Amino acid sequence: MTQKTKFQIGVIGAGSCTPDEADAAYRVGREIARRGAVLVCGGLGGVMEAACRGARDGGGTTVGLLPTDRKVDANLYVDIVIVTGMGHARNAIVAASSDVLVAVGGEYGTLSEIALGLKMGKTVISLQDGWDIQGLVVVKEAEDAVDRAFTILLQ
Amino acid sequence: MTQKTKFQIGVIGAGSCTPDEADAAYRVGREIARRGAVLVCGGLGGVMEAACRGARDGGGTTVGLLPTDRKVDANLYVDIVIVTGMGHARNAIVAASSDVLVAVGGEYGTLSEIALGLKMGKTVISLQDGWDIQGLVVVKEAEDAVDRAFTILLQ
Amino acid sequence: MTQKTKFQIGVIGAGSCTPDEADAAYRVGREIARRGAVLVCGGLGGVMEAACRGARDGGGTTVGLLPTDRKVDANLYVDIVIVTGMGHARNAIVAASSDVLVAVGGEYGTLSEIALGLKMGKTVISLQDGWDIQGLVVVKEAEDAVDRAFTILLQ
Amino acid sequence: MTQKTKFQIGVIGAGSCTPDEADAAYRVGREIARRGAVLVCGGLGGVMEAACRGARDGGGTTVGLLPTDRKVDANLYVDIVIVTGMGHARNAIVAASSDVLVAVGGEYGTLSEIALGLKMGKTVISLQDGWDIQGLVVVKEAEDAVDRAFTILLQ
Repeated sequence: MTQKTKFQIGVIGAGSCTPDEADAAYRVGREIARRGAVLVCGGLGGVMEAACRGARDGGGTTVGLLPTDRKVDANLYVDIVIVTGMGHARNAIVAASSDVLVAVGGEYGTLSEIALGLKMGKTVISLQDGWDIQGLVVVKEAEDAVDRAFTILLQ
Repeated sequence: MTQKTKFQIGVIGAGSCTPDEADAAYRVGREIARRGAVLVCGGLGGVMEAACRGARDGGGTTVGLLPTDRKVDANLYVDIVIVTGMGHARNAIVAASSDVLVAVGGEYGTLSEIALGLKMGKTVISLQDGWDIQGLVVVKEAEDAVDRAFTILLQ
Repeated sequence: MTQKTKFQIGVIGAGSCTPDEADAAYRVGREIARRGAVLVCGGLGGVMEAACRGARDGGGTTVGLLPTDRKVDANLYVDIVIVTGMGHARNAIVAASSDVLVAVGGEYGTLSEIALGLKMGKTVISLQDGWDIQGLVVVKEAEDAVDRAFTILLQ
Repeated sequence: MTQKTKFQIGVIGAGSCTPDEADAAYRVGREIARRGAVLVCGGLGGVMEAACRGARDGGGTTVGLLPTDRKVDANLYVDIVIVTGMGHARNAIVAASSDVLVAVGGEYGTLSEIALGLKMGKTVISLQDGWDIQGLVVVKEAEDAVDRAFTILLQ
């Protein structure tokens, strides 16, 4: 590999989520870690926490980009805490810091990150079929999402 | 009126647009100005420039929140230039600084602003029918968009 | 004048201040307005509020770049409220949006804005003699500060 | 230890520096790593690069918070690249993401980070005697700076 750093894959989703979404996020995070990439996320609960927990179990490194100005707001599975103190504007940093983005469920905040990622020319892979957004890659299984991500990264 | 400041209405849309979109943006901007509100936008070309031109013709004040770090990047119809130097993260400031948002056409960047606005609990009115986003208010005519905005602001 | 927009002069200083500092800030703001420039500031109390009050009395326009995410946090003399929601990072936007900066008293927050302004290559004029910073222009009277600002702007 | 994550120590300094400053930054970074903390910095050259190189040699992890919007702008010794795309406003994120800050040499940009750190209530340790800033801790040797940092963190 000629890249300088590890791949950084962003997982985006809401701060509260259904058990199914948490399960999917966990599996996405675990797979990201198993394949050697760094997990980037918003650092809070819900999808973000489940993904971090998965990445921890997969032996990986997790980065949480908090919207708040307090390090303690990070979930328990964040290794590197970035305290942006910038509210929703931190969504742009999540998108910009990720080589590829994987969306799990989500609502308006997630939609903004999907849109920002696509605007920045990144591949965004969604596990939810609900969005009708041109260019968004939709897959069904968590592992497929990460597999797709690596296919793109290794092109 | 008990409010401290004038209403601030955000107009969001792409930096390049069709003549029809420019016409709609111009009319939205002009109507905002005629009714006494301040126009907030991203300060660049396309929809943003057309809206600012309309607001100027309507005798109003225009605010441009530039993503770049150079004041000269503002279009010719911006009165107050805010130089954020923050790239796409400035979209969050556009949304947060607007009491109501009006979207004209648009693509990924606009979608991110729509999503951020809705996430912040603001009313977002769209002149385009294409988005399938829960909570987005869709109208057909430029003047209707502004009328709808004021109905909400004056509630 | 060939410039597109009015000059924008930033006034920086702490959110709480002494009566002497408030008086100086008021006079700086009033002079900025009398000479036709727009006042840019952080939108809160203390030096910022006094400067905005002066600018209002001078018949000018005031812009407040709030660190918080709530428009109501602006002082009563702000005309255009920019809601950055970015905490201390908004200091960089204050500096970048000002053609020249005038510092009144101040502490760490003000020091960061002075440093950012100088880093961006802007002239920063201080009414306080306390700082020992290369490149900072120190003057004694409020009106002198604004006079100096215009001398630079009109060069 | 009851803390959730490793300590994060910020190293701040200019993007170009003297050999002496690079040597000091290298030793600061190496000592941070040897003692088990994560190095946080602005991700570019000069002091930042030297500190990252030291931390690598010390077996640690480095985080670079880039002002630009391109991951490739990070120096070769950054492990985790945060792409803020926010220019000088990223200085606030460097300060907020660091439990303690160590300044090596530096100019206006560094001064802004020192001021922001102090404003946020953090301890800022400087290896340069030149600044005359209340509250700034000045030390002579690189290892003393890190020792001082850990004394504060372990209180």
